Amino acid sequence: MAAVQAAAQAAATPATSAPPARWQRLLPALPILDWGQRYDRATLAGDAVAALIVTVMLIPQSLAYALLAGLPPEVGLYASVAPLLLYAVFGSSRVLAVGPVAVVSLMTAAAVGEHAAPGSAAYWPVAITLAFLSGAMLLAMGLLRLGFIANFLSHPVISGFITASALLIAASQLKTLMGVQAQGHNVADLLIDLARQAPQADLRTLVVGVLATAFLFWVRKRLKPLLLRWGLPAQAADFVGKAGPVAAIAVTTLLAWALQWQAEGMKVVGAIPPGLPPFTLPRWDPALWRQLAVPALLISVVGFVESVSVGQTLAAKRRQRIAPDQELVALGASNLGAAFTGGFPVTGGFARSVVNFDAGARTPAAGVFTAIGILLVTLLLTPALHHLPQATLAATIIVAVLSLADFGILRRTWAYSKPDFAAVAATLLATLGLGVETGLLVGVGVSLALYLWRTSRPHIATVGLVPGTEHFRNVQRHAVRTRPALLGLRVDESLYFANARALEDHVNDAVAAQPALRHVVLQCSAVNAIDASALESLETIAHRLRDAGITLHLSEVKGPVMDRLQGTALLQQLGGPVFLTHYQAMAALAPEVLAEPAESAPCS
Amino acid sequence: MAAVQAAAQAAATPATSAPPARWQRLLPALPILDWGQRYDRATLAGDAVAALIVTVMLIPQSLAYALLAGLPPEVGLYASVAPLLLYAVFGSSRVLAVGPVAVVSLMTAAAVGEHAAPGSAAYWPVAITLAFLSGAMLLAMGLLRLGFIANFLSHPVISGFITASALLIAASQLKTLMGVQAQGHNVADLLIDLARQAPQADLRTLVVGVLATAFLFWVRKRLKPLLLRWGLPAQAADFVGKAGPVAAIAVTTLLAWALQWQAEGMKVVGAIPPGLPPFTLPRWDPALWRQLAVPALLISVVGFVESVSVGQTLAAKRRQRIAPDQELVALGASNLGAAFTGGFPVTGGFARSVVNFDAGARTPAAGVFTAIGILLVTLLLTPALHHLPQATLAATIIVAVLSLADFGILRRTWAYSKPDFAAVAATLLATLGLGVETGLLVGVGVSLALYLWRTSRPHIATVGLVPGTEHFRNVQRHAVRTRPALLGLRVDESLYFANARALEDHVNDAVAAQPALRHVVLQCSAVNAIDASALESLETIAHRLRDAGITLHLSEVKGPVMDRLQGTALLQQLGGPVFLTHYQAMAALAPEVLAEPAESAPCS
Repeated sequence: MAAVQAAAQAAATPATSAPPARWQRLLPALPILDWGQRYDRATLAGDAVAALIVTVMLIPQSLAYALLAGLPPEVGLYASVAPLLLYAVFGSSRVLAVGPVAVVSLMTAAAVGEHAAPGSAAYWPVAITLAFLSGAMLLAMGLLRLGFIANFLSHPVISGFITASALLIAASQLKTLMGVQAQGHNVADLLIDLARQAPQADLRTLVVGVLATAFLFWVRKRLKPLLLRWGLPAQAADFVGKAGPVAAIAVTTLLAWALQWQAEGMKVVGAIPPGLPPFTLPRWDPALWRQLAVPALLISVVGFVESVSVGQTLAAKRRQRIAPDQELVALGASNLGAAFTGGFPVTGGFARSVVNFDAGARTPAAGVFTAIGILLVTLLLTPALHHLPQATLAATIIVAVLSLADFGILRRTWAYSKPDFAAVAATLLATLGLGVETGLLVGVGVSLALYLWRTSRPHIATVGLVPGTEHFRNVQRHAVRTRPALLGLRVDESLYFANARALEDHVNDAVAAQPALRHVVLQCSAVNAIDASALESLETIAHRLRDAGITLHLSEVKGPVMDRLQGTALLQQLGGPVFLTHYQAMAALAPEVLAEPAESAPCS
Repeated sequence: MAAVQAAAQAAATPATSAPPARWQRLLPALPILDWGQRYDRATLAGDAVAALIVTVMLIPQSLAYALLAGLPPEVGLYASVAPLLLYAVFGSSRVLAVGPVAVVSLMTAAAVGEHAAPGSAAYWPVAITLAFLSGAMLLAMGLLRLGFIANFLSHPVISGFITASALLIAASQLKTLMGVQAQGHNVADLLIDLARQAPQADLRTLVVGVLATAFLFWVRKRLKPLLLRWGLPAQAADFVGKAGPVAAIAVTTLLAWALQWQAEGMKVVGAIPPGLPPFTLPRWDPALWRQLAVPALLISVVGFVESVSVGQTLAAKRRQRIAPDQELVALGASNLGAAFTGGFPVTGGFARSVVNFDAGARTPAAGVFTAIGILLVTLLLTPALHHLPQATLAATIIVAVLSLADFGILRRTWAYSKPDFAAVAATLLATLGLGVETGLLVGVGVSLALYLWRTSRPHIATVGLVPGTEHFRNVQRHAVRTRPALLGLRVDESLYFANARALEDHVNDAVAAQPALRHVVLQCSAVNAIDASALESLETIAHRLRDAGITLHLSEVKGPVMDRLQGTALLQQLGGPVFLTHYQAMAALAPEVLAEPAESAPCS
């Protein structure tokens, strides 16, 4: 956190300011102390406008994501107040908006659904407990500076996971769009159940849902260009475009209220008890905690990754930085806040943060104002939401999540690298077929396994001298000079236990194929580390070569690797000193090759 | 297997022989077809002598390891016949001796003990099923060429595991030495139970056991030097030294028979039913198979690693090679053979293979002769083993396994590399405290996690020009030239998802610290791969730098990496072409630094 504070101060104050004192660096960092000191009227105006726009956007989203998580709609509002306030205090991003988001809500539904039936009295307390565990884990990871764990989710795995989650979410919303009940933890089960339920579909719900979806897609893709062509200023066109969802909600709510659709069987949001978010406690049940531990960890990591990538992207646009470990603390506090105020797991959302940024938010105070806005709605305006059709909310979710799906990643990774493609495909298929938790674990497992597999099969090139230079290149790619008595091998990988044996095998094979061999020189310019297993293998190689009358040499060993090799038996077993350059090795061991006139290039 | 055949043929025939035809390469390799064709009288003599010596050594070992595995002693003899014959047909090592070994027997006891009480009727069939599963897995791994899996057991993990297993085995034999019953899956439980049972110890058993142990240690350490000092020829001294254990067995057996110790309460081997090994079938019980799957896999991998390292060491002494994938097939066949002839999991043993090699075995026919020898003993000589005290067998096990323990590995890895030390210590402690299976899994997990952790934090050096040369070196280690407008960074790691973010952070920090910066050049000589995540990060870096008026360049990109980057958006986002050398980058971007006179060295 010292780094966070230092970074925040560097951004805030001239470079001449003194570094924080030792006691200050031990205190938890509070970014609010930085931006709060310099808060002024202009900043206030920007923050307030942004907060108003985000509040209008968040109300239907909060309701919708609570329903997606299997919770009553008002829980989405509760989860949008305390987390925003706490993030404003602890967060290092100036514009991140924290609250319920689609993928985390889906993961919450999957995790809580294992322990309670959606709609039952036992369901909500489990969701609260999940938020508590997730918050505690995020906080602990932040304090222990374990933010690097998120680095083990590769971009292909994240893309595959988000794309599959978007499909799962869209499929799960079809039932609301049709006004039926359908279940299934994977896409196939869900679609089969939906097809079975299709005859019971409520026609009016279906029409409203499909029209709302079509309208929202049209607003997203076509409205803004149309308005621009009509001569509206860009900013106004942008604002109207973003207000589209609000229009869909207002129109369908008014229609449902005027025509009394609820009485005719359409599902609407219904009565939301007005009032402050309740004070709640997680269930104190170690057995439940153990069972929720893995889902909570996955939700934490996914939420953290989503939040940090949004935060970093937006911070970079204004040349600001965010501090990942501080973000863990802030998200941890936000989730703990959600747990104690009747909410469920939250994180920094992509769409709302972008809207907040575009609308001109300057500091996390915008989040505070948004929280106040939502609180006012929760206290005063819930009756206005009574007749909002659930099908309209389903339509907003479908349109929102399908913009997250990125099928192009399959084509791009296929073109660039097959292991990355395999990681995307495995994550995508496992998430669709086996559910979100298994899918994510499969993705991480596959990507790590493929990485380890690649490093366990190092590229080892036989190198020769490029005539007229001091450079050595792969004999298979370049016309180079070699000698039967000398073998130069360039090892293109750090040497560690998984590839130590491959090196032994390669040297054995190369020696068997070159009977006149007297010297083997390993060029170590790409060897960034040698672990104890590889050291033993190198000693074995030196020993076996010596038995065959061949000496082993090393060249171009990097400083840190050389430091470590000092004092090992290996250095005594070599045929001489470690050569600083491969050229020096050649000059010492096979000088005649240097004396030859260059065939292809003059000496320079 | 094509490679095996090719290698075997290369060793057997002059280099002019034609490569195997396509259909031949598709057939399973049978090394016996190679050495069998050239078998002659001299080879027969060497093999027969070696077989005689190994048979004498194997009889007590087989009995002892069967007892260690919780099985009746004769099962050890059964497990030493069919596996030896099958290995002779399929194995690629000329001298490996397959049969029950200490560590695998301990693992068998741990795995089977979960499903049946030692000594109960249900125990043996579970052991047979375990051998069957292990054999099937080894065979499948061999056919699918998955031998590389064993590379993920690092040397430190193997050393820690073997050392801890040796301690566990020695501790478990103390109860036999004391003539009591004691249980416990970890060393602490076992020793506590032993202390509790101590008052019930059988004094005669204890005296015989302790004396036998002391004698065997003396034979191992002192007898051969003594005999040499007395003027015995080296070979004879060696032979007498190896015959020591036989003397201990003969003497204690004769005493037990003459003095009727069994009647006075001493545990002896007892009546062994003479006859051929029985035909047995594994239990056809999918639920049991599922539960035994992980232990069977661990036993397979540990057995394979032990066997291959012995085989490779001995093959190298005679300039032969072994083929790891063929070894998997051979060990698979051996274990399947054990399962169908009343045996239990087997692998290539260290001590017996060395004895076989030293005694002059030339081909796997020595294994066939040994199998015949053990078969004859099983048929004819079991009455002679009746009075062999179990305490003597315990003494032979203790002396054998303590030679496997290698505590020096702790000191050596501590000195060389702390992560390797951590892997040894974790494996050692987990194996002692949590049992063999958990211990091994902990070891593999810790060593992989430490490797991934290291690669996720790449060493990134800021480099400058060494005056008077074309070389670039770390500014922190060398007096080099740099320019405020140009930053050269050498990335000492392949770029992949786990370290992509670290690179972004490093570049961000470096840019923030150098306000006059115009160009960043990443020197990629140690970057052996760039995955899709790292490509995205590089694009992000290029994008952010461009926003700040800084251009990103790459230099010294390796051929395979460059091939892959062709056609990506990254190359368009760079500030120009990829430089072949870092020096060329400097010459193009900051030529003034080259023109300066060298302070420390004349131009060469």
